[in-house]
Amino acid sequence: MEKEIDKNKTEKIMVSDDISAKVKELEERIATLEKKDDHLTMVVFSGDFDKAMAAFIIANGSIAMDMKVTIFFTFWGLDILKKSSFNTTGRGFLERMVLAMRPKGAGRLGTSKMNFGGIGPRLFKFMMKKKNIEQLESLISMAQEYGVRIIACQMTVDLMGLEPSDLFDGIECGGVGAFLASSSHSNTTLFI
Amino acid sequence: MEKEIDKNKTEKIMVSDDISAKVKELEERIATLEKKDDHLTMVVFSGDFDKAMAAFIIANGSIAMDMKVTIFFTFWGLDILKKSSFNTTGRGFLERMVLAMRPKGAGRLGTSKMNFGGIGPRLFKFMMKKKNIEQLESLISMAQEYGVRIIACQMTVDLMGLEPSDLFDGIECGGVGAFLASSSHSNTTLFI
Amino acid sequence: MEKEIDKNKTEKIMVSDDISAKVKELEERIATLEKKDDHLTMVVFSGDFDKAMAAFIIANGSIAMDMKVTIFFTFWGLDILKKSSFNTTGRGFLERMVLAMRPKGAGRLGTSKMNFGGIGPRLFKFMMKKKNIEQLESLISMAQEYGVRIIACQMTVDLMGLEPSDLFDGIECGGVGAFLASSSHSNTTLFI
Repeated sequence: MEKEIDKNKTEKIMVSDDISAKVKELEERIATLEKKDDHLTMVVFSGDFDKAMAAFIIANGSIAMDMKVTIFFTFWGLDILKKSSFNTTGRGFLERMVLAMRPKGAGRLGTSKMNFGGIGPRLFKFMMKKKNIEQLESLISMAQEYGVRIIACQMTVDLMGLEPSDLFDGIECGGVGAFLASSSHSNTTLFI
Repeated sequence: MEKEIDKNKTEKIMVSDDISAKVKELEERIATLEKKDDHLTMVVFSGDFDKAMAAFIIANGSIAMDMKVTIFFTFWGLDILKKSSFNTTGRGFLERMVLAMRPKGAGRLGTSKMNFGGIGPRLFKFMMKKKNIEQLESLISMAQEYGVRIIACQMTVDLMGLEPSDLFDGIECGGVGAFLASSSHSNTTLFI
Repeated sequence: MEKEIDKNKTEKIMVSDDISAKVKELEERIATLEKKDDHLTMVVFSGDFDKAMAAFIIANGSIAMDMKVTIFFTFWGLDILKKSSFNTTGRGFLERMVLAMRPKGAGRLGTSKMNFGGIGPRLFKFMMKKKNIEQLESLISMAQEYGVRIIACQMTVDLMGLEPSDLFDGIECGGVGAFLASSSHSNTTLFI
């Protein structure tokens, strides 16, 4: 009898080993879930100057709070990442036409409101300078320096007839899967 | 000494019942939290062709990654879900006027930029065809086939004087509560 | 027999101190994660009447479902929070010019589509009244009453030359950090 109980006890002991292993596993899963607090993923669809400002102010603010940031640029958002000059010879007619009509780079974007044929953005840049707010171009280079992950939508790059070399250096091209892999581990997800 | 060990064993025995029940409960709660990785919820407020493309590319990409997708269409977003023809006789004057001014269905949406009185969307559709990108209408029917849950905002349906029969088949009508019930269990939430 | 029970008790007391403390800690961390279901954080960047309606319908719907809501108003979104009259004398020339061109308050916003020089918003307000949908101003005061946390972007307030007294009472000013602190504990995050 005594021996029986002992055997039972021994079995139960095993259970406790199992449990402490299980508790350890659960703790790791919780830590993974908690890490989402520190991730922010944005889609930047718009190519407006004011929305680009908002995106990079949020991105750099997140970096300052030790968060990880991924931004997926798609459609008009790619205008923000374009170099201020690139050669479109050798591309299709439609692609050249569309590229010719789009602003080249962060320095030439219009605003979503009060654009007034380009006077709006100049006015806001002047007002921002007076108030010591960083300009868009320097917000972007700060973001790149601080490790914000910038993904250019491959499909848009193809559609618009862009070459990766038309965009700032250090930008990866990726599909919607790259966005989703990041957003599904982020608490803060925004479409701008 | 032997007895000491035995006592230790006995102590360990107790780890079991209460705690193992609790650990099991916690594991279930963690699994529920982890499932949020696999849920994506969008509000589609805009009725622009390019934004609708973005919404359905994200939706179908999520489905391809085994995620669950809910899209709540509200305000102008309902334009995307309209059948290409429906009869507005018998509706109020204002409702008929507003319906007459809005595009009927996914095939007639304008773009948010470079619309040029409807030339922009045609141009982009042509360019998309050349690059083998799926057209919006087929992205929508793929989404419906693959089980994307599409909710039309009941309040907008009422406000615009729409009938559920004016919209694609297989669409449920719901309030903001239906959106929130889904978004609060999703990691990725977007307002488009 | 008596001794047996005692022994049982002792065993239960022992409940492996380490493990039960750990399980308790994990439960608290899980509860913290679960609370995110009940938090919603929005950036309202747009000052359009229809988008403001959407934001406050979502906010008040969330409150009705016992959720906590934080809205961060930035850029044009601040138009929604302006009092219908305030004096701009004593401010810089550019600031006065910009303030003069922006709508003053929730009652004078344009719509993102079909604005028609201000006829659109009037039309929609009339249609909403007929359908018994709450007007924007009353949605905003309901939100404030029910404890929606409203933060005005300090940088925009400075940039536009606004004074906190130009905005509704009970609004705090804060930076992007205040937004991120809230969004990183929210499951639903939207940029409107």
